[in-house]
Amino acid sequence: MGIVVPLEEREKQKPAGIESLLELIRPDLERTNQLILQRMGSDVTTIPEVANHLISAGGKRLRPMLVLATAGMCGYKGDGQIKFAAGIEFMHTATLLHDDVVDESDMRRGKIAARMLWGNETCVLVGDFLLGHAFKMMVEPGVLSCLTVVSNAAAVIAEGEIMQLNAAKDTQTTEDAYMGVIRRKTAELFAAAAEVGVMLAGRPKADEAAARSYGMNLGIAFQLIDDALDYGGSSAKLGKNVGDDFREGKITLPVVLAFRRGNENEREFWRRTLERGEINDTDVETACGLMKKHKALDDTIERAIHYGAIARDAMEIFPSSPWKSALLEVVDFCIERVY
Amino acid sequence: MGIVVPLEEREKQKPAGIESLLELIRPDLERTNQLILQRMGSDVTTIPEVANHLISAGGKRLRPMLVLATAGMCGYKGDGQIKFAAGIEFMHTATLLHDDVVDESDMRRGKIAARMLWGNETCVLVGDFLLGHAFKMMVEPGVLSCLTVVSNAAAVIAEGEIMQLNAAKDTQTTEDAYMGVIRRKTAELFAAAAEVGVMLAGRPKADEAAARSYGMNLGIAFQLIDDALDYGGSSAKLGKNVGDDFREGKITLPVVLAFRRGNENEREFWRRTLERGEINDTDVETACGLMKKHKALDDTIERAIHYGAIARDAMEIFPSSPWKSALLEVVDFCIERVY
Repeated sequence: MGIVVPLEEREKQKPAGIESLLELIRPDLERTNQLILQRMGSDVTTIPEVANHLISAGGKRLRPMLVLATAGMCGYKGDGQIKFAAGIEFMHTATLLHDDVVDESDMRRGKIAARMLWGNETCVLVGDFLLGHAFKMMVEPGVLSCLTVVSNAAAVIAEGEIMQLNAAKDTQTTEDAYMGVIRRKTAELFAAAAEVGVMLAGRPKADEAAARSYGMNLGIAFQLIDDALDYGGSSAKLGKNVGDDFREGKITLPVVLAFRRGNENEREFWRRTLERGEINDTDVETACGLMKKHKALDDTIERAIHYGAIARDAMEIFPSSPWKSALLEVVDFCIERVY
Repeated sequence: MGIVVPLEEREKQKPAGIESLLELIRPDLERTNQLILQRMGSDVTTIPEVANHLISAGGKRLRPMLVLATAGMCGYKGDGQIKFAAGIEFMHTATLLHDDVVDESDMRRGKIAARMLWGNETCVLVGDFLLGHAFKMMVEPGVLSCLTVVSNAAAVIAEGEIMQLNAAKDTQTTEDAYMGVIRRKTAELFAAAAEVGVMLAGRPKADEAAARSYGMNLGIAFQLIDDALDYGGSSAKLGKNVGDDFREGKITLPVVLAFRRGNENEREFWRRTLERGEINDTDVETACGLMKKHKALDDTIERAIHYGAIARDAMEIFPSSPWKSALLEVVDFCIERVY
């Protein structure tokens, strides 16, 4: 199982990375980071403290990068991309803060979760503050079509989160239902990010739709690879951070596949651990074993590759450019993390 | 202590009400209610259930009414006021949902709080859903200046909530600090509602500022009267719903005044009950007694009348009209509730 990477678009054998993209967007990304720091300021000192805990916690800034890259690819000459990049990162951070409260998580990105340090109340309200400021920033460039896209994304993301909450701990969740959740909860914001960059540049509808499709399918692939990584990725190696989703009782695609392909004893194992939360020391290892037995991780990765291919094809209508190559490489990067 | 109500603007002795306003805005308010019902729909059935619990729980729709009334007064002929009225009610409802989670309230508007029925997680996420849809609706009329106002309000409200959380249970809160909280948390949305109605009509800046000042000061007066009502209002009568703020340890203006004017024994009473939450059966009565002794409720009402007067004066630049009279009567209505 390999990913087909056109040789002319990046050097052979070098693992896919986001370096070419970073090189192209460096000045814009620096301005975005400055705007983020500036706008999370408040006389109410709790706000920058909490926001900073998450925003500087080493997120990859993938979503803002998509705004900057698609705007750059389309030759946009204005300043609006900075506001949308920062605004979309604020929306993402607000979601993380509210997610932690909803999931009752103790950890986030390998750091202690904000809610453990400042309490659920503060996390709810700082999330609201960031969401308000996100819209405030994104109104400033004065591009209504882009505001429609991001406000729609805000509503869709919340809907996805509620769907996930309703399906939580239900081992009988279907693959379709799960895909419906991650399209809304994760991929919608990737899609919005890629779309607004093109919209700002005033390109035709077909280009907007192409960028949206790229973002949507990249987002799905990204989430599926995350799901696989949580059980050790393609090697299913046990290591630190493996099993976080499992311990939180999260139903992800690897679980959906392993449960459906399992026998009655195995299904009872998933019900005990994920639905009833009765987890003992050896259960993570058992879970990884069952994933391996049923090729649940391999096939989750296979699905991710499928969506990655759609993302790549969506980009084909854009003429060749270093920007386009860099965006294609992001797809490979998101998938190759798993190996 | 009385309110000066110009006789030519409403019938003598008839208590102030919102009936004249309701009469003027009836068709628009019906359209707003229909839009609210339509936009809170979702295939995810939890969403309309939770939203409906709050939105149909008999809120007075004061904020949407301000949008419709100021737009009507300024002769606005478009449709945008309906979207902003519904959007602002969604913003308000989202705040209530998140507030309940933050305050750990059991009750809201005399009904069981949504969080007790659906859980904190769902309330956080349905709040986010409503906020997303609020912006989505308010983008539709395509008036950027109004979007600036409402997105700014969203950020300011969250900031006010965080300030309140930081000052929670602090009996030494100053009147100024408390006023800073309610300006942001309550009055800002009243101000935004009144302002966008005028903005939609394309009126000069001075009219926008007047409407904003009217809304801001009306909002402050409204909140102060609410604070007084929670201890029984001007008669300080004990009745049902009296003492809810007290039992939740909320620091409101009556408490700020009673604490500052009290002797050391009395201050210890406020610290024990509100800061340490050690409340026994007779404490609500004692609290009301201390309010009476120090004229804390009378002076809270006096402050409300002061802000009400500012709201009335702000309106003076608008020419006489049934709309203007109805808006002035809203100020009296908000204050006279207390008697």
